Amino acid sequence: MASEGEDSPKLRYVQNPYIETMDEDILFHLNMSTKTHNFKELFGDVKFVCIGGSPSRMLTVAKYLAQELSYHVPSNFELTNMTKSSDRFVLYKVGPVISASHGVGVPSMSVLLLELLKLLSHAEAKDVTLFRLGTSGGIGVEPGTVVVTSEPLNGLGMPKYEQIILGERVTSEAVLDEELGDSIKNCQPADLDFDVVRGKTICANDFYQEQGRVDGAICNHTEEDKFRYLEKLQKLGVRNFEMECVALAAITRKVKLKAAVVCVTLLNRMKGDQVTTPHSTLTEYEKRPAMVVARYMLNELQRQQN
Amino acid sequence: MASEGEDSPKLRYVQNPYIETMDEDILFHLNMSTKTHNFKELFGDVKFVCIGGSPSRMLTVAKYLAQELSYHVPSNFELTNMTKSSDRFVLYKVGPVISASHGVGVPSMSVLLLELLKLLSHAEAKDVTLFRLGTSGGIGVEPGTVVVTSEPLNGLGMPKYEQIILGERVTSEAVLDEELGDSIKNCQPADLDFDVVRGKTICANDFYQEQGRVDGAICNHTEEDKFRYLEKLQKLGVRNFEMECVALAAITRKVKLKAAVVCVTLLNRMKGDQVTTPHSTLTEYEKRPAMVVARYMLNELQRQQN
Repeated sequence: MASEGEDSPKLRYVQNPYIETMDEDILFHLNMSTKTHNFKELFGDVKFVCIGGSPSRMLTVAKYLAQELSYHVPSNFELTNMTKSSDRFVLYKVGPVISASHGVGVPSMSVLLLELLKLLSHAEAKDVTLFRLGTSGGIGVEPGTVVVTSEPLNGLGMPKYEQIILGERVTSEAVLDEELGDSIKNCQPADLDFDVVRGKTICANDFYQEQGRVDGAICNHTEEDKFRYLEKLQKLGVRNFEMECVALAAITRKVKLKAAVVCVTLLNRMKGDQVTTPHSTLTEYEKRPAMVVARYMLNELQRQQN
Repeated sequence: MASEGEDSPKLRYVQNPYIETMDEDILFHLNMSTKTHNFKELFGDVKFVCIGGSPSRMLTVAKYLAQELSYHVPSNFELTNMTKSSDRFVLYKVGPVISASHGVGVPSMSVLLLELLKLLSHAEAKDVTLFRLGTSGGIGVEPGTVVVTSEPLNGLGMPKYEQIILGERVTSEAVLDEELGDSIKNCQPADLDFDVVRGKTICANDFYQEQGRVDGAICNHTEEDKFRYLEKLQKLGVRNFEMECVALAAITRKVKLKAAVVCVTLLNRMKGDQVTTPHSTLTEYEKRPAMVVARYMLNELQRQQN
């Protein structure tokens, strides 16, 4: 198995013996292939991967990182969506950073992540760290708070990623790098007026019923049931709901890729279900995960150069 | 409960008593609200909803339907993405048809579908039929074949949609309208050189392991395991894999909205895992579900006018 500790393993972030035997590897949803793309030349220097749901947000992240990390970005830099005619996901490269979109939910995110792992491996990139920069529904925290996930939990409250493979249920441990999460939290900028907190995160498979909302097209529970559930979660240390974290944690753990989930909360679910925050405020909130993670990346890049 | 049989129920495709009590309903991912949009004026005449994964494909579908259904489209028609600054999903309206994208996988599709159900209900649209026009991996059928799903099955081979609501597993029946599916199959155009077949469909929650592929970044099974699994599915009458059908069937069944899943197969999984078909051929294949469904819609619109 490929691991950070070994000397240049052939496919570092892949755990599949078949890949090495393939004449060509087509990354279908990224619209790239080992026959048409020189992955080593294009992505060999990647140190950080930022992924998030929305394509336009990940373009904004790419532009922001081009500014913030300017020292580490080549002078002839141009921002191009490298997936081109594939409109499933966007992917930008900014110096040593990839910024890519993963859509909504575990299945969509897993497609992007699994293809990124092959991309990084074919590129022989190493010592890579991955961040999900997301939006989320807060539980008992002020809207605009950034939550760095301490423990990703499925809807049953377990740190598990459940798949059905060849007709059988298969469960993997969903664990994120604790030290990485703590370091990101410690990047909380003193000059910025929002909180960065560590907290557990529930990974829901829909936006409405699985997050206890009573404003979806289908709802069989009462508002009282909802509040009982949210209060129970709050007591367990859960600070937000999103829709990808258990799969992200389980997949990255399996291939020994360090990863963190950093989400801003758009609302406090203890106060309502609908996102009534004005659009301009939401846009402001959405920048925050990248602001925190950019500090972490700058620190790391400077540390590696010294 | 709202049902087609009742006289103008207030919220026809909604099964949630809370919605009627809300002062405003914000459809967050569609970037629309009952306070900013006159749903009845905008969407009251909708009879058909076409949804599919990719935003550019659903734009192509909208353009194609504008031609095919020209008789039913107003002369001052302009094609506009009505979700505007929300880049999660696109939504176009072409005469009596909505064409919208739902991204990849059940969670993403469910967000779009649940918001569409509220949109249709606020609009007081009635006798609506919904089609998922998708792409899929075929099992023992020629690439380019269109499969009209007879029975949507989860990875365990059961016609069930499993959710986790308020911390508990909840299972719903995933059943599609049989008569609708048969009628669509019978629209197979004699002048077109591809097959339209009825068959069971497996709804997978990822593109790689859950579809038995051995070309993903993580794989713990052998090629022999894969073929045993695919052959078993083929014997059961399964003709393709996609990633949304059980949720679509269960949700539409609950609100009594007639629905069909119509997917073209991009490859025959009995012959490989990678999509090696040239891009131009794929683009050609991707038009087929809309070609079949457009015939069905034209027949229905003509029948309703007579």
